[in-house]
Amino acid sequence: MGMIERKLEDMGLVLPAPLQLPAGVVLPFPEVNIRGDRAFISGAGPLNTDGSLAAPFGKVGSDDVSVEEAAHLAKLSGLAMLAGLQRSLGTLDRVTGWVRAFGMVNSTADFTNQPAVINGFSHLILEVFGDEIGRHARSAVSMGALPMRIAVEIEAEVMIAL
Amino acid sequence: MGMIERKLEDMGLVLPAPLQLPAGVVLPFPEVNIRGDRAFISGAGPLNTDGSLAAPFGKVGSDDVSVEEAAHLAKLSGLAMLAGLQRSLGTLDRVTGWVRAFGMVNSTADFTNQPAVINGFSHLILEVFGDEIGRHARSAVSMGALPMRIAVEIEAEVMIAL
Amino acid sequence: MGMIERKLEDMGLVLPAPLQLPAGVVLPFPEVNIRGDRAFISGAGPLNTDGSLAAPFGKVGSDDVSVEEAAHLAKLSGLAMLAGLQRSLGTLDRVTGWVRAFGMVNSTADFTNQPAVINGFSHLILEVFGDEIGRHARSAVSMGALPMRIAVEIEAEVMIAL
Repeated sequence: MGMIERKLEDMGLVLPAPLQLPAGVVLPFPEVNIRGDRAFISGAGPLNTDGSLAAPFGKVGSDDVSVEEAAHLAKLSGLAMLAGLQRSLGTLDRVTGWVRAFGMVNSTADFTNQPAVINGFSHLILEVFGDEIGRHARSAVSMGALPMRIAVEIEAEVMIAL
Repeated sequence: MGMIERKLEDMGLVLPAPLQLPAGVVLPFPEVNIRGDRAFISGAGPLNTDGSLAAPFGKVGSDDVSVEEAAHLAKLSGLAMLAGLQRSLGTLDRVTGWVRAFGMVNSTADFTNQPAVINGFSHLILEVFGDEIGRHARSAVSMGALPMRIAVEIEAEVMIAL
Repeated sequence: MGMIERKLEDMGLVLPAPLQLPAGVVLPFPEVNIRGDRAFISGAGPLNTDGSLAAPFGKVGSDDVSVEEAAHLAKLSGLAMLAGLQRSLGTLDRVTGWVRAFGMVNSTADFTNQPAVINGFSHLILEVFGDEIGRHARSAVSMGALPMRIAVEIEAEVMIAL
């Protein structure tokens, strides 16, 4: 077991199973695409531990999803990204540095607290990997809509050891 | 003629002419920006073979544009991206690996089938380049709006041979 | 003083102080994340020279913000990005090439002139750095909403000298 995997266990965190695709959805691309010493994580939504999409669904800023719920969904999106990295890399210890994260919130048109939502992701990454490996450039913004009514989706790039 | 160019010909596909800018629109940046062994493709919309923007325009999820039409527009955006790469690289055979694609749909606020739209792009890239060179990390999301009412826009990064 | 800093001075441009965070906003990530010879600039909004967020706020395409005002805000976002790069790099002369910029406009759902808005950024970068170092791949699109009602936000990647 890698050091990062042990850290996750110490934190009581469980990585989810691979995404269970809703009926009729085809995703012809890898969850993580490795090119040289860079790994690109496809846009990831929040998952339950069995790989099903995590509720609540809909727009942050409406009655659908509160900011606190959305921040938790951003953390779950982060755990789904770690699960994908682990499947691709064997161990998360191969992550040598987070590069960039693009945090996408499904919100109403007048929502303004995207940072508080995506902080659920950033705090997870910093706690798991520490400040040096975990630091990442970030944008936290709202989209017009997200697939399957998920409330949060995040894509990212990390550096890896070969 | 490169092997990829021959493949496109075998598939009956024609790369479009450069974007014919609508009156008054100024785009002070290259369609492809090469830095070392990486080529960055600026956000590209769907083009007709003469380089004019391809219809239909407007929001997917409304009467403007159906999912099937939007998937075709995503394929046309992909062909526009290949045309830009070919102009920049001389031949598409210099593409050694797709890295990342960010698929942007101009949709209503309650649209949820962005993956089916951007699959029009992904299937093209995989068929033309094959699974190893063509594989790409991907997000498929909706924007608040897109320039000139285009229904789809995609940006991407590829690795290239020097 | 670096050559780029002198150029900014000759142009009469002043780089803003670091972002003054509105009360209650926590941003647990760096404004610039350096990984090897690449520097990633977190999503940056328009700042006044004291580091406060620059008005007008709200949606381009409504009475809130005109296209001309938004283009100026995109320029101010660019200056905020340069300020962040300077703090991280010591001097802007270490920027060896702009790579990619993702220009995000907070607009109404039927706005179509995102390029004119983000041109305020692109023209600044090209004038300050010249065509070779300044050229960048670009997307200019509208988001569903932006944090703190800012009208423009831009993220980017640049190559740097070590």
